[in-house]
Amino acid sequence: MSIRTELFNYLSPHITPERLNLFNKIIEQRTKYITVVLEDIYQSQNASAVLRSCDCFGIQDVHIIENRNEFRLDSEVSLGSSKWLTLHKYNQKDNNSLATIKELKSRGYKIVATTPHTNDQELPDYDITSGKTAIVFGSEKPGISEIIMNEADEFLKIPMYGFTESFNISVSAAIVLHYLTHKLHNSTVNWQLSEKEKTDIKIEWIKRTIKRSDLIEKRFWEEHKKE
Amino acid sequence: MSIRTELFNYLSPHITPERLNLFNKIIEQRTKYITVVLEDIYQSQNASAVLRSCDCFGIQDVHIIENRNEFRLDSEVSLGSSKWLTLHKYNQKDNNSLATIKELKSRGYKIVATTPHTNDQELPDYDITSGKTAIVFGSEKPGISEIIMNEADEFLKIPMYGFTESFNISVSAAIVLHYLTHKLHNSTVNWQLSEKEKTDIKIEWIKRTIKRSDLIEKRFWEEHKKE
Repeated sequence: MSIRTELFNYLSPHITPERLNLFNKIIEQRTKYITVVLEDIYQSQNASAVLRSCDCFGIQDVHIIENRNEFRLDSEVSLGSSKWLTLHKYNQKDNNSLATIKELKSRGYKIVATTPHTNDQELPDYDITSGKTAIVFGSEKPGISEIIMNEADEFLKIPMYGFTESFNISVSAAIVLHYLTHKLHNSTVNWQLSEKEKTDIKIEWIKRTIKRSDLIEKRFWEEHKKE
Repeated sequence: MSIRTELFNYLSPHITPERLNLFNKIIEQRTKYITVVLEDIYQSQNASAVLRSCDCFGIQDVHIIENRNEFRLDSEVSLGSSKWLTLHKYNQKDNNSLATIKELKSRGYKIVATTPHTNDQELPDYDITSGKTAIVFGSEKPGISEIIMNEADEFLKIPMYGFTESFNISVSAAIVLHYLTHKLHNSTVNWQLSEKEKTDIKIEWIKRTIKRSDLIEKRFWEEHKKE
């Protein structure tokens, strides 16, 4: 048994069996095959609504670029969803957008910018089976930065037929994530997490659920050393 | 030539050719096959975002039930979309919800409530080709009223896999309308407006675009009487 599985088994009696069942059920629907990148979102309502959509559709990893704006949440909108996601923040470099894209590309992600472009395609035409996909949503006003536009592999737009040719970012993200996860679940792609990833995330979930988890974990490592 | 077509031809020189082209293009994507019912929505941001989604996805008719709450719009969110929709308000009866449902049923609509229910089905499983569909979204807090729950023909829910098992109404509406209009456009259903409906709506659009349209229309009817 791996040491992480041992830690998981050590921690799990500290939550109720119902809670543990819920974790075991939800983790089966989590994916890192699709990931979300948020570039300089400044309205906390938007940021919070996107995280809620990520949780609802099983997207585990969210990459948050803070070049000019600090990422803030509105708890009435997010409903605690951030607690169950793995948030990666990029705010230490001169150019955090480029750093994020490089990081994701090195991990095998295609960069898909959600914005109209001369080379764009409509959401229903995007082939989600073509590889791991990082979907980028840009800032409310300027939109996705030129840096990411230059680095993007593909461009997606939501088909629209009316006078008002735009959506709020929380609405865009919900439409895109609903549609792509639906397509993914109906494909033959192996989109689920590995057993190791599942264990690691469930350990995080337990640690965020119980009080003084740091002490319990410390005790585990001390006992482990003695063996 | 019908009198309505004559009126349209009489009015159209009052807008620019570009505007007229836009109207002619957008009207081809409008539908009454799907219609939206909003029951007692009280947050103007939500109401406005739903109208914007209706416009973007070509839903022309929106039925607004005001039992307890007056329907208010937030112009920064709606971006003027209400100007291009046909809004039907129901606020004169003791029971406006029932009046709305009866009216829609008499016009051949199936009533589809977007809410979890023992008999619900997931959004992707709904057969949009099975007939004209009125999709009901309920109030933010109590949700869809018991009256509509009792009268509904079907129940729809958006598949969700996370801890936060709910969406804001503006997000729900966007997901549902995007998905169902996409399916509709890819079906063999005759979802487009009749020529008469197209002309009537374009007349309304022109009247809402030009100043003193009432005077111009009055002149038309006077000249028409003389003939």
